[in-house]
Amino acid sequence: MTRKLAAEAFGTFWLVFGGCGSAVLAAGFPELGIGFVGVSMAFGLTVLTMAYAVGGISGGHFNPAVSLGLAVANRFDWKELLPYWLAQLIGAAIAGWALYAIASGQTGWTPGGFASNGYGDLSPGKYSIISALLIEIILTAGFLIVILGSTSKAVPGGFAPISIGLCLTLIHLISIPVTNTSVNPARSSGVAFFAETGAVGQLWLFWVAPLVGAAIGAAIWRFLLTPGESLEDIGGE
Amino acid sequence: MTRKLAAEAFGTFWLVFGGCGSAVLAAGFPELGIGFVGVSMAFGLTVLTMAYAVGGISGGHFNPAVSLGLAVANRFDWKELLPYWLAQLIGAAIAGWALYAIASGQTGWTPGGFASNGYGDLSPGKYSIISALLIEIILTAGFLIVILGSTSKAVPGGFAPISIGLCLTLIHLISIPVTNTSVNPARSSGVAFFAETGAVGQLWLFWVAPLVGAAIGAAIWRFLLTPGESLEDIGGE
Amino acid sequence: MTRKLAAEAFGTFWLVFGGCGSAVLAAGFPELGIGFVGVSMAFGLTVLTMAYAVGGISGGHFNPAVSLGLAVANRFDWKELLPYWLAQLIGAAIAGWALYAIASGQTGWTPGGFASNGYGDLSPGKYSIISALLIEIILTAGFLIVILGSTSKAVPGGFAPISIGLCLTLIHLISIPVTNTSVNPARSSGVAFFAETGAVGQLWLFWVAPLVGAAIGAAIWRFLLTPGESLEDIGGE
Amino acid sequence: MTRKLAAEAFGTFWLVFGGCGSAVLAAGFPELGIGFVGVSMAFGLTVLTMAYAVGGISGGHFNPAVSLGLAVANRFDWKELLPYWLAQLIGAAIAGWALYAIASGQTGWTPGGFASNGYGDLSPGKYSIISALLIEIILTAGFLIVILGSTSKAVPGGFAPISIGLCLTLIHLISIPVTNTSVNPARSSGVAFFAETGAVGQLWLFWVAPLVGAAIGAAIWRFLLTPGESLEDIGGE
Repeated sequence: MTRKLAAEAFGTFWLVFGGCGSAVLAAGFPELGIGFVGVSMAFGLTVLTMAYAVGGISGGHFNPAVSLGLAVANRFDWKELLPYWLAQLIGAAIAGWALYAIASGQTGWTPGGFASNGYGDLSPGKYSIISALLIEIILTAGFLIVILGSTSKAVPGGFAPISIGLCLTLIHLISIPVTNTSVNPARSSGVAFFAETGAVGQLWLFWVAPLVGAAIGAAIWRFLLTPGESLEDIGGE
Repeated sequence: MTRKLAAEAFGTFWLVFGGCGSAVLAAGFPELGIGFVGVSMAFGLTVLTMAYAVGGISGGHFNPAVSLGLAVANRFDWKELLPYWLAQLIGAAIAGWALYAIASGQTGWTPGGFASNGYGDLSPGKYSIISALLIEIILTAGFLIVILGSTSKAVPGGFAPISIGLCLTLIHLISIPVTNTSVNPARSSGVAFFAETGAVGQLWLFWVAPLVGAAIGAAIWRFLLTPGESLEDIGGE
Repeated sequence: MTRKLAAEAFGTFWLVFGGCGSAVLAAGFPELGIGFVGVSMAFGLTVLTMAYAVGGISGGHFNPAVSLGLAVANRFDWKELLPYWLAQLIGAAIAGWALYAIASGQTGWTPGGFASNGYGDLSPGKYSIISALLIEIILTAGFLIVILGSTSKAVPGGFAPISIGLCLTLIHLISIPVTNTSVNPARSSGVAFFAETGAVGQLWLFWVAPLVGAAIGAAIWRFLLTPGESLEDIGGE
Repeated sequence: MTRKLAAEAFGTFWLVFGGCGSAVLAAGFPELGIGFVGVSMAFGLTVLTMAYAVGGISGGHFNPAVSLGLAVANRFDWKELLPYWLAQLIGAAIAGWALYAIASGQTGWTPGGFASNGYGDLSPGKYSIISALLIEIILTAGFLIVILGSTSKAVPGGFAPISIGLCLTLIHLISIPVTNTSVNPARSSGVAFFAETGAVGQLWLFWVAPLVGAAIGAAIWRFLLTPGESLEDIGGE
């Protein structure tokens, strides 16, 4: 269990440090910056790489919504949910702190939004709270279906980190303008407290929507897409 | 059969919501937008991820032209063609509606072309109807050859979603300026009715050209590239 | 043999139509264009997708320099070299013609360089003939080492198209500014005759350098990197 | 042993020539240049391609910090460390020289930073020495965890080059603005002597930080993430 939680903490650290780090440090660099395409690639690659590295230890969730969805789909033990969430939040918090330490080493730097998530005035494209709720729910539901399908017995072993990691890239390509893309409450929590914009006051949405979306996605998978499979037949990850 | 149609509907939803969503929401974001490269990546990754997720259930077509081509190549039962088309169109329609609901949550937003396909005045680069027909036919034919080849017995299992998904990325990298890239009548139909530009009047081309191209590609595969293979030898997907 | 040559012709068509097509149609589109990154991705994905599709039929060369290098490395029958070259050139010529037909469907379009390769005044960054020779030789040599290594017995089956396709992407990311990147005489020949810039007069270099580089790379692989392997041990593709 | 050292020299040549080459030749090309996204892709693809090509021969380190970390993790023989370092430095030096020869074939070209690494005034974003140390240590530590995890028995064979190569892409997406990204003392050394900016005077940091980070990452893997594994159980690469 210690190894599992260390793997989740380290993996979530990597996701937040790498994904938010690319946004804070590199997205808006003059002329040569990576833009939303680069940030989308970075988030996806944090999951692809760490899922290969430690997915065999902890399952490679790195995201409280993923852990919840896997529990709903009967692929993860409900008793481990809270310890996983804590490990994920600790990893995310350390990542936020490390990123702040590094970014503040630039003369004249101010945190601004610090890659936090938001809606309304804090949405990159000023999208409404309804748009934010809808897109976070839909994309997290789709994310869970991709995760559950890619780790099912129908898929040859070894491809799941590619599918799941690049799914997170896809999700960012679509939704950065709307909410700066969460689908992961730990990622949102790890940076919100460093933002100067009041992102903490909107943090609730980035817990509610991803968790609701993950539960919906897991339910769609379990009851609509795998009706003939008995619970014993469902392979673990 | 219910599971198969649910998988096709959900997969086509994902393709249209993700691909067209990236175009509508993120392509033209000031300075940091994802441009045609990001949209090309998004379309490809919708197929890559959903093919891993539900490809084992339905074959992962998500595209009426692909279903037709597979039937022509003797890899798909003609009797299932119409149900598949209906499921794909329903998924695409829901995706168009959901995307419209989210995008309209931005103050002052108007749908414009809404990621619809077009030729002549509605082509992004004002290409003629002949150019549009040619490129849609050629690229859909190539798409089918990649699909048929990548799912043949010669290729080790598990790689097909990578090859097929990235083929859709490639197709978009080439042809967005010409037709905004269809090669998929469901994708074109799912968004055309929301456009303010009269895209519906050109929708016929994005049924005709992909279907013709898919049939040509499947025929090339069946009669030119696999002459020695008897029909019994052709592996299902 | 007919199937093999059809596969080579079609694959080379796909490489030239897709790679050069992305450059001619999409690279410089105002604001949203795909730039050199998108063109690099497109070239690589033509090979990745077609190698999965028809690599099992013909070996998936799509490039006279690759065929030569494989012959030098004892992986390809010298007697098949000329037929392969002809099939590749025919595919490339049809691709150039089809691309011209499509691109000319834009009002006011002129071919300009038409994605042709060049040095000196015809180099995108005005690099000298020496720079052009050096980079084409070095990159083709590296390409052959990647091809020979990725298709050797040491690598599990199925990954070679990823490695080889993305190697072509890498090669373009480096060298488009110098020569517009050839490493493939068929690709250079397929478009040179449509250019208005005199690219045909420089075509010789894009035969000589890739062929010399391929032979060097194959020799490095055969004599330096696989000294202990007897010829019988070397797996075919 | 000769084959191993030849593979390391050639692989490190490819990493420095390709990665730094994309930066020097293509990153800042007017309008169509590849920017930091393209350079990040190029560095990652050098490792992905060469790890498939010669990883089976030498393990595919191409980086003195990786060799050290693998030794710390008990996956690499300490006696081979120094020969590997020498081979890597020779490959990097030849790459720097070849790149210089090619780049100088452009009229009016001056080397400038020549893709060298730096902090303070030589950091692309003028980040402090503390930021540089922190980010190089953290990212090299994460790199080693990804390498060690992706080559462990838990992961099906063949995926490691994808995971490790794309991890280097990720690392560049995050940190080019801070140090121009090293995590590899050979890469830093291969180009520093050609820079006109005094990069040689800062070269020490790009030996110290990657080596320290690699040792930390390897220690985390060995003592925190694999406590139950005995040394005999640890699979070689």
